[in-house]
Amino acid sequence: TLTTSTSAKTLKIGLLPADGIGREVIPAAQRVLESLSSGPKFEFVHLDAGFEHFQKTGTALPQETIDHLKNECNGALFGAVSSPSHKVAGYSSPIVALRKHLDLYANVRPVSSVKSASTPNQKELDMLIIRENTECLYIKSERQEVDPKTGLKVAWADRKISEYASKRVGAMAFNMALTRESLRQQKPESERFWKHKPRVTIVHKSNVLSVTDGLWRETVRGVKEQNAEKYAGVDMEEQLVDSMVYRMFREPEAFDVVVAPNLYGDIISDGAAALVGSLGVVPSANVGDNFVMGEPVHGSAPDIAGKNIANPVAAIRSAALLLEHLGYTKEALQVYGAVDKVLSEATILTPDLGGKSTTSEVTEAVLKNL
Amino acid sequence: TLTTSTSAKTLKIGLLPADGIGREVIPAAQRVLESLSSGPKFEFVHLDAGFEHFQKTGTALPQETIDHLKNECNGALFGAVSSPSHKVAGYSSPIVALRKHLDLYANVRPVSSVKSASTPNQKELDMLIIRENTECLYIKSERQEVDPKTGLKVAWADRKISEYASKRVGAMAFNMALTRESLRQQKPESERFWKHKPRVTIVHKSNVLSVTDGLWRETVRGVKEQNAEKYAGVDMEEQLVDSMVYRMFREPEAFDVVVAPNLYGDIISDGAAALVGSLGVVPSANVGDNFVMGEPVHGSAPDIAGKNIANPVAAIRSAALLLEHLGYTKEALQVYGAVDKVLSEATILTPDLGGKSTTSEVTEAVLKNL
Ligand SMILES: CC(C)[C@H](C(=O)O)[C@@H](O)C(=O)O
Ligand SMILES: CC(C)[C@H](C(=O)O)[C@@H](O)C(=O)O
Repeated sequence: TLTTSTSAKTLKIGLLPADGIGREVIPAAQRVLESLSSGPKFEFVHLDAGFEHFQKTGTALPQETIDHLKNECNGALFGAVSSPSHKVAGYSSPIVALRKHLDLYANVRPVSSVKSASTPNQKELDMLIIRENTECLYIKSERQEVDPKTGLKVAWADRKISEYASKRVGAMAFNMALTRESLRQQKPESERFWKHKPRVTIVHKSNVLSVTDGLWRETVRGVKEQNAEKYAGVDMEEQLVDSMVYRMFREPEAFDVVVAPNLYGDIISDGAAALVGSLGVVPSANVGDNFVMGEPVHGSAPDIAGKNIANPVAAIRSAALLLEHLGYTKEALQVYGAVDKVLSEATILTPDLGGKSTTSEVTEAVLKNL
Repeated sequence: TLTTSTSAKTLKIGLLPADGIGREVIPAAQRVLESLSSGPKFEFVHLDAGFEHFQKTGTALPQETIDHLKNECNGALFGAVSSPSHKVAGYSSPIVALRKHLDLYANVRPVSSVKSASTPNQKELDMLIIRENTECLYIKSERQEVDPKTGLKVAWADRKISEYASKRVGAMAFNMALTRESLRQQKPESERFWKHKPRVTIVHKSNVLSVTDGLWRETVRGVKEQNAEKYAGVDMEEQLVDSMVYRMFREPEAFDVVVAPNLYGDIISDGAAALVGSLGVVPSANVGDNFVMGEPVHGSAPDIAGKNIANPVAAIRSAALLLEHLGYTKEALQVYGAVDKVLSEATILTPDLGGKSTTSEVTEAVLKNL
């Protein structure tokens, strides 16, 4: 629920840059928040997490970090985490754990075209992907056995889909569809990309997973059916996850809000990021009822870390998403507007977008346009 | 193992057009097989399967069909199956069941650019996706409970990854990488799309699924490591499934052979199909040690069924794949060549590729070029 708060409340924000370029883009996002002329005051708390922290201390996510976030913070910004491709004893991704610990049940990922970007795709898009963030295969309930007959290994993972989790993330999707529509209505018609009724596309694979994805599909559909009046203005459609990837590539302009179980959402949002030219511009917010954590969709990018050339846009937009979901819509729009200006002028861009500017220069440019 | 058979053996091929456009494209593929001037003789057996058959008889896959295929056929061609988006009591996809019954453990999906196709993608590609075809979430081991505390439903699915299945499909990937290379070597260098060492890309998500995808990853890597000499000429790399979709959209030219667990393979192959302009040109073969079943990747397309405008290319190429995997490489290349000629001339194309020709006209054009 997005309302514009007018009180100059102080927000305590945990900063978890974690690994690699997280350490460059989170400070950039922090500077943008600090430079806002209206809205809340900020108090920042620096917190440890990540693979490098694990290598130093044996813990990827210290209990202290969790406690701070839970007991003292209104929100957080997470950078990026390195994950070794091979199994490292005792290591488990802190971002997945944080989503669970803080019950951040929806991962909200807006993806929209960057006109200046060189991309293999020639079509424009402006979609909001809402990914269920707590269950599916991400519950990490796995085990391995040895087949006594053959001596060969067999591994199992549990995929969980609950009515409870599907319903709340479904409600988020329909609510966000209405919110997007009301923000669109505030723009002149010529500037609106989406010209249809708001639309929620439910992604599933219930032709194979009739029980789990069947429950997902029915529950999300139920959100609209049981609130027929409230959501009368929102169209509902469905796509099998394989067809979704196909259609997203061929007609990305056909999607407004897309809601998906955890793993499908993970895959789809990377696909959508490719369509706009760079993961470096795609933000996300991990949203719960009492906490929001902004997180750029990109990874820790060890190959470019420490060079001051990482694109800070995804992190800055994640800070704006954080504001938006904490109720500061006006300030969020200010940040989005400043970023959009820099991207559309296309003179100050990092290398991922074909430019030659640094992380600091792009950040400065955004600050100037605030 | 692809060897060129010289004996004019008779192959008994089961035809399962199933639903929708399957009934138009399978006869097209049959005509192409019948028109080959060399290679095996064919005997075709018409077999029932599909959603429409289920609606008439209560069975989507009659035992008789399975028995015929198992006991009398050398291979089969499957059309496409309609799946209702909602659960229909007693109905379950016959294609998934056939893969299991016949132990067709690899789904081989070559995807390559169609120069004439209008696609939002500007990059060329020529990759072979090998999808594990028997396990992962496709084992359909699911159940639903009611949480006694909340009265809400919770559903569970099992994901199975075995060393046995991972190893045989991994071996298929490395072998196909060598086969592709040897076919490339027979072409003049200027006509070879892939100019690097043969490459196998292993898709996984072991940063989250460390046990199941960990086992998958290690086992497929092990295929190369344990046959170091045999596969010395093949490079091996890995991609997380989300990054895979990202990279595939941005640099599809970077992939040669891609091997993936069942669900990831399903999603990736639809994505790759989008990149070449139409699902209507992408074939597959379900390959086991003793049986091969060709199957176009597209669905039953009820919207265009019965209009004689479905693209027969995917089915015709699937027939060629069938030949290839039954050992008739020369005849397979003949069919591929005829199809490629029609596509590159680009005067006789179905509507999915921007043309105005019919299924029959495209089929005739292929026959003329055989
Ligand atoms: C790092 C990884 C565990 C994570 C995920 O799969 O959720 C990432 O891919 C993301 O999308 O945030
Ligand atoms: C129809 C469906 C069960 C099938 C699958 O998911 O395997 C299809 O999408 C495919 O790719 O062959």
